[in-house]
Amino acid sequence: MSSTWGNSIKYTIFGESHGEAIGIVVDGLTAGFKIDLEEVEFEMKRRAPGTSKLVTKRKEKDKFEIVSGIFDGRTNGAPLCALIGNINQTSADYEKTKNIIRAGHADYPAFIKHNECNDYRGGGHFSGRITAPIVFAGAVAKQILRTKEIAIGSHILQIGSEKDVAFDSVNVKLDDLDSLKHKKIPTIELESAKAMEQLIIKIKQQNDSVGGIIETAVINLPVGLGEPFFDSLESQIAHLVFSIPGVKGIEFGLGFGLAEKKGSEIMDEFYIDNDCIKTYHNNNGGVLGGLSTGMPLLFKVVVKPTSSIKQKQRTVDVKVKSNTEVEIVGRHDPCIILRTVPVVEAMTAMAILDLV
Amino acid sequence: MSSTWGNSIKYTIFGESHGEAIGIVVDGLTAGFKIDLEEVEFEMKRRAPGTSKLVTKRKEKDKFEIVSGIFDGRTNGAPLCALIGNINQTSADYEKTKNIIRAGHADYPAFIKHNECNDYRGGGHFSGRITAPIVFAGAVAKQILRTKEIAIGSHILQIGSEKDVAFDSVNVKLDDLDSLKHKKIPTIELESAKAMEQLIIKIKQQNDSVGGIIETAVINLPVGLGEPFFDSLESQIAHLVFSIPGVKGIEFGLGFGLAEKKGSEIMDEFYIDNDCIKTYHNNNGGVLGGLSTGMPLLFKVVVKPTSSIKQKQRTVDVKVKSNTEVEIVGRHDPCIILRTVPVVEAMTAMAILDLV
Amino acid sequence: MSSTWGNSIKYTIFGESHGEAIGIVVDGLTAGFKIDLEEVEFEMKRRAPGTSKLVTKRKEKDKFEIVSGIFDGRTNGAPLCALIGNINQTSADYEKTKNIIRAGHADYPAFIKHNECNDYRGGGHFSGRITAPIVFAGAVAKQILRTKEIAIGSHILQIGSEKDVAFDSVNVKLDDLDSLKHKKIPTIELESAKAMEQLIIKIKQQNDSVGGIIETAVINLPVGLGEPFFDSLESQIAHLVFSIPGVKGIEFGLGFGLAEKKGSEIMDEFYIDNDCIKTYHNNNGGVLGGLSTGMPLLFKVVVKPTSSIKQKQRTVDVKVKSNTEVEIVGRHDPCIILRTVPVVEAMTAMAILDLV
Amino acid sequence: MSSTWGNSIKYTIFGESHGEAIGIVVDGLTAGFKIDLEEVEFEMKRRAPGTSKLVTKRKEKDKFEIVSGIFDGRTNGAPLCALIGNINQTSADYEKTKNIIRAGHADYPAFIKHNECNDYRGGGHFSGRITAPIVFAGAVAKQILRTKEIAIGSHILQIGSEKDVAFDSVNVKLDDLDSLKHKKIPTIELESAKAMEQLIIKIKQQNDSVGGIIETAVINLPVGLGEPFFDSLESQIAHLVFSIPGVKGIEFGLGFGLAEKKGSEIMDEFYIDNDCIKTYHNNNGGVLGGLSTGMPLLFKVVVKPTSSIKQKQRTVDVKVKSNTEVEIVGRHDPCIILRTVPVVEAMTAMAILDLV
Repeated sequence: MSSTWGNSIKYTIFGESHGEAIGIVVDGLTAGFKIDLEEVEFEMKRRAPGTSKLVTKRKEKDKFEIVSGIFDGRTNGAPLCALIGNINQTSADYEKTKNIIRAGHADYPAFIKHNECNDYRGGGHFSGRITAPIVFAGAVAKQILRTKEIAIGSHILQIGSEKDVAFDSVNVKLDDLDSLKHKKIPTIELESAKAMEQLIIKIKQQNDSVGGIIETAVINLPVGLGEPFFDSLESQIAHLVFSIPGVKGIEFGLGFGLAEKKGSEIMDEFYIDNDCIKTYHNNNGGVLGGLSTGMPLLFKVVVKPTSSIKQKQRTVDVKVKSNTEVEIVGRHDPCIILRTVPVVEAMTAMAILDLV
Repeated sequence: MSSTWGNSIKYTIFGESHGEAIGIVVDGLTAGFKIDLEEVEFEMKRRAPGTSKLVTKRKEKDKFEIVSGIFDGRTNGAPLCALIGNINQTSADYEKTKNIIRAGHADYPAFIKHNECNDYRGGGHFSGRITAPIVFAGAVAKQILRTKEIAIGSHILQIGSEKDVAFDSVNVKLDDLDSLKHKKIPTIELESAKAMEQLIIKIKQQNDSVGGIIETAVINLPVGLGEPFFDSLESQIAHLVFSIPGVKGIEFGLGFGLAEKKGSEIMDEFYIDNDCIKTYHNNNGGVLGGLSTGMPLLFKVVVKPTSSIKQKQRTVDVKVKSNTEVEIVGRHDPCIILRTVPVVEAMTAMAILDLV
Repeated sequence: MSSTWGNSIKYTIFGESHGEAIGIVVDGLTAGFKIDLEEVEFEMKRRAPGTSKLVTKRKEKDKFEIVSGIFDGRTNGAPLCALIGNINQTSADYEKTKNIIRAGHADYPAFIKHNECNDYRGGGHFSGRITAPIVFAGAVAKQILRTKEIAIGSHILQIGSEKDVAFDSVNVKLDDLDSLKHKKIPTIELESAKAMEQLIIKIKQQNDSVGGIIETAVINLPVGLGEPFFDSLESQIAHLVFSIPGVKGIEFGLGFGLAEKKGSEIMDEFYIDNDCIKTYHNNNGGVLGGLSTGMPLLFKVVVKPTSSIKQKQRTVDVKVKSNTEVEIVGRHDPCIILRTVPVVEAMTAMAILDLV
Repeated sequence: MSSTWGNSIKYTIFGESHGEAIGIVVDGLTAGFKIDLEEVEFEMKRRAPGTSKLVTKRKEKDKFEIVSGIFDGRTNGAPLCALIGNINQTSADYEKTKNIIRAGHADYPAFIKHNECNDYRGGGHFSGRITAPIVFAGAVAKQILRTKEIAIGSHILQIGSEKDVAFDSVNVKLDDLDSLKHKKIPTIELESAKAMEQLIIKIKQQNDSVGGIIETAVINLPVGLGEPFFDSLESQIAHLVFSIPGVKGIEFGLGFGLAEKKGSEIMDEFYIDNDCIKTYHNNNGGVLGGLSTGMPLLFKVVVKPTSSIKQKQRTVDVKVKSNTEVEIVGRHDPCIILRTVPVVEAMTAMAILDLV
């Protein structure tokens, strides 16, 4: 059980929402890689709050500082550590409600787990803010993977009842993946994004939130990444994706749709295409027996509606053990999935870099 | 990347489908625990083939032998190793088709990953047979968890278009969990099992296979198991479950259903019940912020239809790189999910024991 | 291979001698522990340079800042991260000799290992300065161990030809351990310290350096810490101690002296003392079969003479591959062992805390 | 804390002296390596008892069986598992003295650690017999290393007061390493072996035992293996070597001799030799800053005299907590170091293979 993950590359995360700083240590990077810092900043901005009316207006300083592991612009073989400072906020806001646990948040189990000493301010170490260093590490991982032609991209497949079309499972194009990350709402079809935007605005006006589904693709993976037991490619990605706040499900290829299928309907038959071995279909999402097949890796991740909504909720005071009520204040995301997209991609990049 | 998993308890798996033996080493068990070997045998029989007309007729010797870690019937603090011998089969059957990769199986990526030296007979180390030692380890883990009141049970929620009702998410009863494991097709409603049975017989007659969904519940978990980064309770379970052959998706609580929900609809509000802190609903499936909440842990796993069906398929010869055809012979499961249930439970028990 | 070590407690170190900052992340500490920061500062001062005429005059800011893991003065269950800023120094000094590898330092293998991109300034990540965060983590570990009565202390057994008496192996007193850390040269006999001081001053005048031996004791360990394979108590301590720059050997109990002994001479026979099980002698240094015996844990560590001495040395330019000469300038320690003592204790505390 | 060790290659050991079988799982070997089984048998025979009058007469079946990981004579990419069966012995011998702890053995701490449930017969999992699977794994590791020109060899530097000359630290020859393993007592000088043999015979007649020192060399290591923190080359080797029963100390290069040296005396100055970078001396034993330098890796290991000697000893009954006496019967090694040599080499090979 730990804040460190990985084998050949190790990621160690630290920090609390209202502490001095949050950060990450990435260990095991090959020396001599030139990190494109502007590209890292671009990725971090995709996650940052306050960028549009669709996301929370909160301003957070997501400016990172690299304190070790870089020399003359290149990785130097020592652990890479990036820090992101927190803006000092008054703790007073949190003091009075510190024992009032919020629905959908980690407040209650964290209180018990950490002997009533957890940092309750803004969720502490459980805050979604801790995903900022994840995006930093993922941005570096993505750049390294890109030198091996491996590219990662995502679109929003669904928000509430509004849906986008899915990726073409046997033919995901690099250009499409790259263009998605520049869109305010990344969808394949323009109409889907428009409908989703209207839905989010409506939800926001209702002081409510809404969930959604992200579909992620990874292309140009070498064949054979992963292990049957216990570190399948699906295991590694699922492991990391399930540590993103709000994620409640993941499926590869047809996923839950496979329950209704017959074996004869979903066979991914092989054929030779220009001396390459491919499958006519890709119902398995690019993974067989836990290993990458060389076909596009495809998976979907569901993100629950933000738990923090401006509506009164019944709850309890964990200290005195009594029923009470609370209304969460502050500026929250009506649809956090917009900001979760780069986090899912970061975790995916981290998982794959560890395997490559 | 490895065949060893776990922190406080470490599981190391080995063996190939047609090798000398398969087995598992479980390290870190407290000394002095009396293992109920009959109970272990019962669990292994749930997974074994040849037990009814609904599963493959193949006979495999799933008899385990404990070669270390037990003294006078109790764990002795040293690593527990169990072996399961394989029946020697003629390799001749496999020799002639060894370069013909089968759709849906690991044949192709395993061939590439292991430099053309993988054991291709019956899937080798990628075979579903390797789940037998998993069930052994899970059976031991279950017994230890039971001494802490923690119980695990599952039912089949869906096979093809036939569905069962879901668990009552706030009230899963121990007796119900225990009775499920004695059923030929474990469903909550008797009618569901009947319909599923008829469907499987029909599918079998068609020389086809069908997928399904398992719903698993864990009750009486202590509050606070898991970590936000990177070893959330969901991460740990998903990690292990995704190394089960055939599993393509997992969701906790409402899972993918959350995409269509508003925050106001899925709030798991807290209340005091007899001095205990509970939630009125359990849309989060017993996990918040990666930690157990004390409510029933609930998740669903989708299993794809068995890839081995008695129908001609287009494929390639990986050695000469040419298109060809193959028809898989042998006695296969029309609905492998029946035998996957105890494996999912075993992996769950292993994940939880490592955390407790 | 990694900058992270530990099982139940994980330590992740980062930083280079002339980078922005160095630091450590300690993960897995129980929430609610009140860290005595003055005590931590005291330990760090024991390692710091510039404290007397016997050590280097270099001034380094060893002031630590805790950026996460503490809330209201107590550990909060999240990873504890401490940073120690570096004073910005001009790199110009190092630029001109960057390809001239120094005898006794990691320059050459680091140059090869890190594709010529290692940070060569002051040893980079290989610098002895990186032991400052180790002492931080060790100081915290020591405090936690102290709540369990476990105490660690050391004296200098030898510097050059000057020797101190050894600990009484069956009777190490807490007061003695505690008083040692307040001494300028920690020896059991006052005369030894005086002789060692004179030797160091003489060596310093010769622009030379000298090696030595540290003897460390740990008392009140519970019986049974460690494992036979592969994590014996000796393995864990040796693992960490051998990552301290300059350490070239470790021995437990009689150590290398055992080569000349007969079995009949070194039997640690057991007896009952006030209902406790003890041994008459402690030639095994408190470890049997890799496990703690409850007797004082005793080991000796040899530290080589500082490699940086103000004398001309033959060497090579690794870039152009030619023979050359260099004379190392700067203010170096004539006897680094004085500053290594708290580092050995810190590593010991870290190893033991991970096991307890 | 665990019976599994390693990063890129993982070794998992299991078994008790009088259980069904002992064995090891080696995970992470590249597929396609042809193991020379005769060579493995040769290595195992070096460790086996009963081979001469200088070692115990006990006959143990050290015949290994590979149960997984090999296909058509080559590694297949799946975990390699080897089993070594135990001869069933009557437990009756041990039953009556099961609570009488033996000096120098793990009996007492094992009894406490494992809740009085440890397998006390012949030391159980703490038995020196468990090193047989280590030698198996080491033999495989050695063969793989040999394909990369890396060779390991050892001689006995000292037994009691009898000494051999040391390796020439800058010039260790492959032929010399290879010839050592065929000698009954592996020494560089023939006279040393003769004197040691006479000493052992004398010690045996006295029903006593004697300790000694092994010096091991590894040649042709690539430059840069290891890490400064925490996995230095010295750390990795020391970690494994300290899990060999009887080992109480390890030193690299001049080791403890460095305490008396001045910096100016032990400088390993660099020079160019035929376009290679070498050092005139090798006082650091081939490791600088935790990394291999390309010079011969040299270290010494001290092994204590066998604790089991046929002489009456004072001890206690741990169950009733009373003083008593015991005389250990059976045929024991007067000088176990003869059989420890291949174990040290095996551990070294395992450590290095994990790093290469």
